Amino acid sequence: MTGNFFEGGWRVRPSAVAHAYYPSLDIQNIVYPHWVVSFVTDGEVELQAGGVTRHAFSGQVMLHAPHLPFSERSDRGGNHRWFVVEAANDHGMELLRLYPVGEVTTIMDPGKYIQVFDQMLAAWGDKEGAFREMEISSLCQLLLFYLLQSWERGGRTPRSLPASKNDKRFQVLITHINAKLDEKVSREQLAELVHMNPNYLDRIFAEKFRLTPMQLLRELRLRKARRLLEQTELPLSQIAVQCGMGDAAYLNRQFAKSCSITPGAYRERARLANQNYYGG
Amino acid sequence: MTGNFFEGGWRVRPSAVAHAYYPSLDIQNIVYPHWVVSFVTDGEVELQAGGVTRHAFSGQVMLHAPHLPFSERSDRGGNHRWFVVEAANDHGMELLRLYPVGEVTTIMDPGKYIQVFDQMLAAWGDKEGAFREMEISSLCQLLLFYLLQSWERGGRTPRSLPASKNDKRFQVLITHINAKLDEKVSREQLAELVHMNPNYLDRIFAEKFRLTPMQLLRELRLRKARRLLEQTELPLSQIAVQCGMGDAAYLNRQFAKSCSITPGAYRERARLANQNYYGG
Repeated sequence: MTGNFFEGGWRVRPSAVAHAYYPSLDIQNIVYPHWVVSFVTDGEVELQAGGVTRHAFSGQVMLHAPHLPFSERSDRGGNHRWFVVEAANDHGMELLRLYPVGEVTTIMDPGKYIQVFDQMLAAWGDKEGAFREMEISSLCQLLLFYLLQSWERGGRTPRSLPASKNDKRFQVLITHINAKLDEKVSREQLAELVHMNPNYLDRIFAEKFRLTPMQLLRELRLRKARRLLEQTELPLSQIAVQCGMGDAAYLNRQFAKSCSITPGAYRERARLANQNYYGG
Repeated sequence: MTGNFFEGGWRVRPSAVAHAYYPSLDIQNIVYPHWVVSFVTDGEVELQAGGVTRHAFSGQVMLHAPHLPFSERSDRGGNHRWFVVEAANDHGMELLRLYPVGEVTTIMDPGKYIQVFDQMLAAWGDKEGAFREMEISSLCQLLLFYLLQSWERGGRTPRSLPASKNDKRFQVLITHINAKLDEKVSREQLAELVHMNPNYLDRIFAEKFRLTPMQLLRELRLRKARRLLEQTELPLSQIAVQCGMGDAAYLNRQFAKSCSITPGAYRERARLANQNYYGG
């Protein structure tokens, strides 16, 4: 029962958390297997990756992609609050590829970011806590949320360096799919969008995300349907249209197949879960 | 690759979040499909569930189990910060059954709890935020962590009312498995522990958790092995013993089968992910 009632949700797991102070900085072409998220509490850093030079200052986050060599230099002292992290959903879709956060992002509320980071650092250092991993994971997810929110409000400056040509293609596909949830989309159209053979695209996409582009489209349509069932009183026929699922009968069939419950029963269940038992 | 590098992780999704004020309280035999977590900011509540009467006061959390009717009464006014939530891992194992938090728990740091709750409530009311679900989910997980931590430090007063006889048995099994990760355990021993036929136990356990007790045991052994590989320099032979996997060769085989990587390569990968690039 449970599986289908949860939205994807991001699984977030840091592999390093530290607060580093330095008198000056000169690290060259270093590589990590995961994302490095480094908040410049204080400093003026020149960073290089993929032949591009950028600068980061106090209150900004530097983001380094996995497997991509980067350098950081500074003549003056400073300190960074940084962590290394894996963040992906059930399909192995990486959070920071789905949302291509830029290499340097100004954090909207640095005080809050620091507060949450320092709580995570304390939990990281405490090897004994029985629920340590739960605390770390929730705080780390909150930090990534602050990063994404700041990136969003700053105009979504995209990364200039996707890790590979395929990642770029997948990015195009996922953005397109998200924008077309209420429209008819064919497998061939999606393949054409990235100039690939449909069979080959299905194969490499599924290798990475464990489902084909069309399966992802169906998942996202159903997810939108669940949202609309929970949050609106729209009739099924209109929900079907808004989710690109034609008519209510088709929505009913697909929904029941995937969620083991009818849309009507799902809505009733959501209503029950959502009642205010104090009244008002 | 990704799948096996993530620990279970809890997927947390609230279906209602509210701050309720009342002049007096008289709710009778109400039922929710999910867990109700209600923090008494101010009040004196008499609660009933399963024929047992308890009292909750300011600074305490009342926890109501799914599908179990409960009542709350108060002659005086008060206010509660409450939410309804599903929290489970990949195997559909519910967080609040795995850890049978009592019906009334005193929160250690109510100020912090309130701060996080109010941030979640604000996010809940903001229907527009692009990363709203991520913010809500991380904050809700943090609140559940505070609840679990307070329960732990308060001596783990267990729930007196498991939802069903099988839940009680599963609880016994899971506790036993967690305590015996370094020992030999057989399928028959586990079945005996709860006075059941091994085949029948496998079936009903897997219906609920999508794996049998022995498969869960193997998962948890491997999880412990990963932790030891990451955090210690112990030789493989000792890790194998501590994880109840006999010798290094057996650990090697099981690990490679499940994680698609050898223990040695996993340790190297963890070391890389964990390096401090600022030195020190």
